[in-house]
Amino acid sequence: MSIYRERIKKACELMARYELDLVILTKPANMFYLTGDGRLCAYAMVTKDAQVAIGVPNTDVDDVKSAATFDHVMGFEDEVGMIHSIAHFFEKFGIQHGVMGLEYAFLPQPRMGMLIHPHAKPKAVISKDCTPLMSELRLVKDKGEIEQLRTAAKTADAGMKAAVEALRPGITEIQLAAEAEYAMRQAGAEDFYRTYVASGIRTNLAHGVPTTKNIQSSDLVLIDIHPVVNGYAADICRTVCIGQASGKQKDAHELYIRGLENATNKAKAGATVTELEQSMHGVFAAAGHKEHIFGPPIHGIGIEFEEAPLPAGHAFFHGEKAPAPLKAGVVIAIGNCGLYTGPWGVREEDTVVIGEEGPQVLTNYPKKLQPHQ
Amino acid sequence: MSIYRERIKKACELMARYELDLVILTKPANMFYLTGDGRLCAYAMVTKDAQVAIGVPNTDVDDVKSAATFDHVMGFEDEVGMIHSIAHFFEKFGIQHGVMGLEYAFLPQPRMGMLIHPHAKPKAVISKDCTPLMSELRLVKDKGEIEQLRTAAKTADAGMKAAVEALRPGITEIQLAAEAEYAMRQAGAEDFYRTYVASGIRTNLAHGVPTTKNIQSSDLVLIDIHPVVNGYAADICRTVCIGQASGKQKDAHELYIRGLENATNKAKAGATVTELEQSMHGVFAAAGHKEHIFGPPIHGIGIEFEEAPLPAGHAFFHGEKAPAPLKAGVVIAIGNCGLYTGPWGVREEDTVVIGEEGPQVLTNYPKKLQPHQ
Repeated sequence: MSIYRERIKKACELMARYELDLVILTKPANMFYLTGDGRLCAYAMVTKDAQVAIGVPNTDVDDVKSAATFDHVMGFEDEVGMIHSIAHFFEKFGIQHGVMGLEYAFLPQPRMGMLIHPHAKPKAVISKDCTPLMSELRLVKDKGEIEQLRTAAKTADAGMKAAVEALRPGITEIQLAAEAEYAMRQAGAEDFYRTYVASGIRTNLAHGVPTTKNIQSSDLVLIDIHPVVNGYAADICRTVCIGQASGKQKDAHELYIRGLENATNKAKAGATVTELEQSMHGVFAAAGHKEHIFGPPIHGIGIEFEEAPLPAGHAFFHGEKAPAPLKAGVVIAIGNCGLYTGPWGVREEDTVVIGEEGPQVLTNYPKKLQPHQ
Repeated sequence: MSIYRERIKKACELMARYELDLVILTKPANMFYLTGDGRLCAYAMVTKDAQVAIGVPNTDVDDVKSAATFDHVMGFEDEVGMIHSIAHFFEKFGIQHGVMGLEYAFLPQPRMGMLIHPHAKPKAVISKDCTPLMSELRLVKDKGEIEQLRTAAKTADAGMKAAVEALRPGITEIQLAAEAEYAMRQAGAEDFYRTYVASGIRTNLAHGVPTTKNIQSSDLVLIDIHPVVNGYAADICRTVCIGQASGKQKDAHELYIRGLENATNKAKAGATVTELEQSMHGVFAAAGHKEHIFGPPIHGIGIEFEEAPLPAGHAFFHGEKAPAPLKAGVVIAIGNCGLYTGPWGVREEDTVVIGEEGPQVLTNYPKKLQPHQ
C-alpha cells in the first residue's frame, strides 16, 4: 500500500472520530501530505470511505496524473469551474448530506465562500473545521519524513554557513540574506519561507526583514532561515558578531545556548510543550532576564515551517488544539523566542526530532557568537 | 501634511461612504499603506475621525516609534495582550458602538475570532468587510509609489537578466531561480514573492515551482519573478530557449507578444480590465489558440504582487468588487495568462502603469525567445 493510501486510511479513521463524512482541502501542505501533490488553486476531496478526488487548473492535469496515485483528477478553468467540479464529485461519490471538514484556520471568508457555495455542495452538507484533524494526522513524522527533514536541515546549515562566512563589515543585511538563499538553492531548496537578517538594534525585532543597512563590526547579527526541500522545511537561527562582542553579549549568548540546551535535552517522548518552554524560559529567568523574553520558544515543523504542535495559548488563536504530551517522531523548532536586552537581542534556533530516549538535533551549524575568531 | 496623514484623511472619507466607524487592519500591506509600517503580528486601528493606534509585539515598539508618525503605539506580549490592547484603544477613543471594518479576505476564522473577541471590542460594535474600501484606497498610485514601483521593476529586470545569462544546458530550474534572486537581492530586494522557473513540459503549469530538473537545450524555460523593494513589488515573466526553438514555438512566442502588446497599448485611463483581457485573448483566439489560453491576463500590483484591480469573475472570489474603468495611476501586471499548446507553454508578463494617454511599461527586459543567439 502506498504511503498516501496509508495516510488516507488513517485520515478516514480520524474522520470517524471527528464525526466528519469528508474533507475538502485547499491548503497545499495538507493536500501534499495526503496525496503527494500540493499546489495553489487546487483542492483534494477525501471521503470517509477513502475515495479521493483532486481538482487542479486545466493546465496542471497531466502533471498531477503523472505523480498522483488517485483515480479522480479533474481540471477546471476558473473559480466557477472549481465549484462545479466539487459538485461533480459530491454527485459521483453519492454524498447528499453529512458533515464536510474545511480548513477554517487557512481559509479567509471569500475562499470559504467558494467551498460552501450552494452550487458546490448539496444543501444538506454542513461544514466544520478540520484543522485539528489534519494537524493530528501530520503530527508524528514517519521515517521517510524525518529523512526529508534531515535533508532540509542540512540545506539550512549550508545556508547559515554561507551567510556567516560572507559576513564582513559593510555588507548589508540583504546581501547576507542573498548568500544564505543562494547556498540553499545550490543545495536543492525549491522554496523558502521568509529570510530574516537583522543587525545591531534591529536584533530586537520579532521579525527582522533584511534591509540595506550596512553591518558594523560591533553589531550582533541575527540570521533566521527556512529552506523547503522536497516539500519539507527546516528552521535554523544563529546570532553572530564580526568584531569583538562585549562581555554582556557573550554572557547573554552563552545563557541563551544554556536555555536552549536545557529545553532540547528534555525533548523526548512524554514531555510537554509547556515543560520545554518552561525549561528554556526558566534558565533565562534564573539569570535575571525574566523581563527580556519574548515569544513562544517552540513550534512544530514539517511540511510547513510553523505547524502543530504550538504552545497552548498560541494554538488557540491559530485554530489548533492545545498539544498533548509529545510523541517520538514529532519534530519541533526550539529557540523561536528572543532574549532582548534593549540595545540588542540574541536568538538561536534548531530543528529537533522528539525521540523515545532523547532528542535528535537536525540542524548542526555551530553556535559560535564570534565565528571568525 | 505627511503622506500618511493624507492617506488617513482619504480613508476617513471612504469610511463615511462605506458606513464604517473604524477599521482594524492586520494585513501588513494595508497597515504599511496607511501608517508607513506594516509587519506581522501587529494591528492598526483607524477611526473615522482620523485617530490612529498601532499595536505591535513588545520587542518592536521602539522600532515602530522611530518610523511611524502616529501618537498611539502600544506593545503587547502575546495574542491575549493584543486583544487587551485593542480593547484599550476602543476605550481611549470612546467607541462603544458602531461598525468596524475588518479584512475578511485576509483573515481566516481563528484570527477573525481574535478581533471580534468579546474582550477585544464593546458588544455593540459589529463588524463588516473592509476589503473593498482598502482596495479602493490603494488603487491609484501616487507619484512616489510609481517611483517605488519603477525601482522594483528595475530590480525585476536585473533578476531576469541574471537568470537568462546563467541559462545553459544542464543547469537546474532551482539554480536559475538562485541567480535571479541573488541579483535581485544585490539590487536591493528586501523580499520576494515566490519565484517560478519551469522548463520543458513544466512550462504548462499554472505555478511552476522550480525543481532539480536539468534544463535541456531544446527546452523552453519560463521565468516568473517578483521582487519587493522598499515595500513595493514588481512582476515580470519571460519565456526563453537555450537552443534552437521550433517554428511552432517561435510562432507562439511572437503571437504571445502581439497579444500582450495589443493589451498593453490599450492600457490608458477609461479602459476596462475586461477590454484589456479581451484584446489579449482575442489575438490568441484569432490565431486558432482559443482553447490554449488559461488564466486571467491582468492583475493589479503595488504593495502586493497581486492586488486590485482583478478581473470581475476572479475579483468576486477574492472579496473584491468588480473593477471600475481604469484610472491613470493604476498599476497592473499584464500577461499573467499562459498560452498552452500541450507539450509546452509560453508566457510573458510586464508591470504597466495606466496613463492618461497611454501605458508606461516599467519592466523592460527584452522579450527574446532565443536570447543567446
